[in-house]
Amino acid sequence: MTTAKRDTYTPETLLTVAVRIFNERGYDGTSMEHLSRAAGISKSSIYHHVAGKEELLRRAVSRALDALFAILDEPDAGRGRAVERVEYVTRRTVGVLMAELPYVTLLLRVRGNTTTERWALERRREFDQRVADLLKAAAAEGDLRADVDTRLATRLLFGMVNSLVEWYRPQPGGGYEGEQVAEAVVRMAFDGLRSGG
Amino acid sequence: MTTAKRDTYTPETLLTVAVRIFNERGYDGTSMEHLSRAAGISKSSIYHHVAGKEELLRRAVSRALDALFAILDEPDAGRGRAVERVEYVTRRTVGVLMAELPYVTLLLRVRGNTTTERWALERRREFDQRVADLLKAAAAEGDLRADVDTRLATRLLFGMVNSLVEWYRPQPGGGYEGEQVAEAVVRMAFDGLRSGG
Repeated sequence: MTTAKRDTYTPETLLTVAVRIFNERGYDGTSMEHLSRAAGISKSSIYHHVAGKEELLRRAVSRALDALFAILDEPDAGRGRAVERVEYVTRRTVGVLMAELPYVTLLLRVRGNTTTERWALERRREFDQRVADLLKAAAAEGDLRADVDTRLATRLLFGMVNSLVEWYRPQPGGGYEGEQVAEAVVRMAFDGLRSGG
Repeated sequence: MTTAKRDTYTPETLLTVAVRIFNERGYDGTSMEHLSRAAGISKSSIYHHVAGKEELLRRAVSRALDALFAILDEPDAGRGRAVERVEYVTRRTVGVLMAELPYVTLLLRVRGNTTTERWALERRREFDQRVADLLKAAAAEGDLRADVDTRLATRLLFGMVNSLVEWYRPQPGGGYEGEQVAEAVVRMAFDGLRSGG
């Protein structure tokens, strides 16, 4: 499609292209040939930057995972009642998802066929478990309804949050603001849609 | 893998095999050859039952869509306050999703490359719109919190409900009961996780 460009890529910009193609074709369906064509540089130029497509995948999902785990170290994730902490983590998770949309999208689609994919799945489960632990602590502090099964609630909460990768698209000057979506998720999950109570 | 079996398939049993393969390989990634191998019958035997893989897709997603739209005609979906009706429809949607898991999974993965896929997407949007209308009516009746954006709430509600296809697996004698999951979804979405209120 394009003639080979002079290689002005850095590992970082190459990653942007790779993530887009992984999301379009699926990781399994992407060859080095596809990446080379999309980046407009030769395969050997790509190998100059990375060992192969699995390294690109590892870098991409690491970016999403690092951003997610960093949330847990923020001050507001560690102080106050557990229910406040888990609301905070939920709000920030939505924020990271929107800020790192292609990277989190890729992370959520990983299926576990390679070492890197299995590692990513494992880390994702670890993050989910940290949130489940917060919900459990909130239940123990009496701040959740008595009938809440925290394991099931964790799945439904992530179901709601992660669904954003399916429909949220940043639209400058239109669509939803990040803050608005994060607030809607937290209010729906913790206070419900019904008025009164 | 298997030697060709005598063709004892009906369109119905062939559909079961096709849906499994579509979900495993993706619709685009499935050839008649894959279906023939999975069913253990020749391609010409398959063509004896259906015109091609698109007809199998249409039958499969129709099964999911018919079950979903049937909910809207049930008596409890049409009487009482809108908030009760939308809670009922949500509970039953979870029920259909669990009862018709492979068919709804396929429906939710449809991407819109063929006439049948575009039709399925259109019907899905129609169903979502019917639920959005119910939420709007509930808001108009004053039964939703004043800050609820019903369009956004519809997306999050379906995000939560549809996430079930990613993790729910029927396990006789273990795991979650359908009723329990449906109730957890409705309580979380409408009353929230927090106690008190």
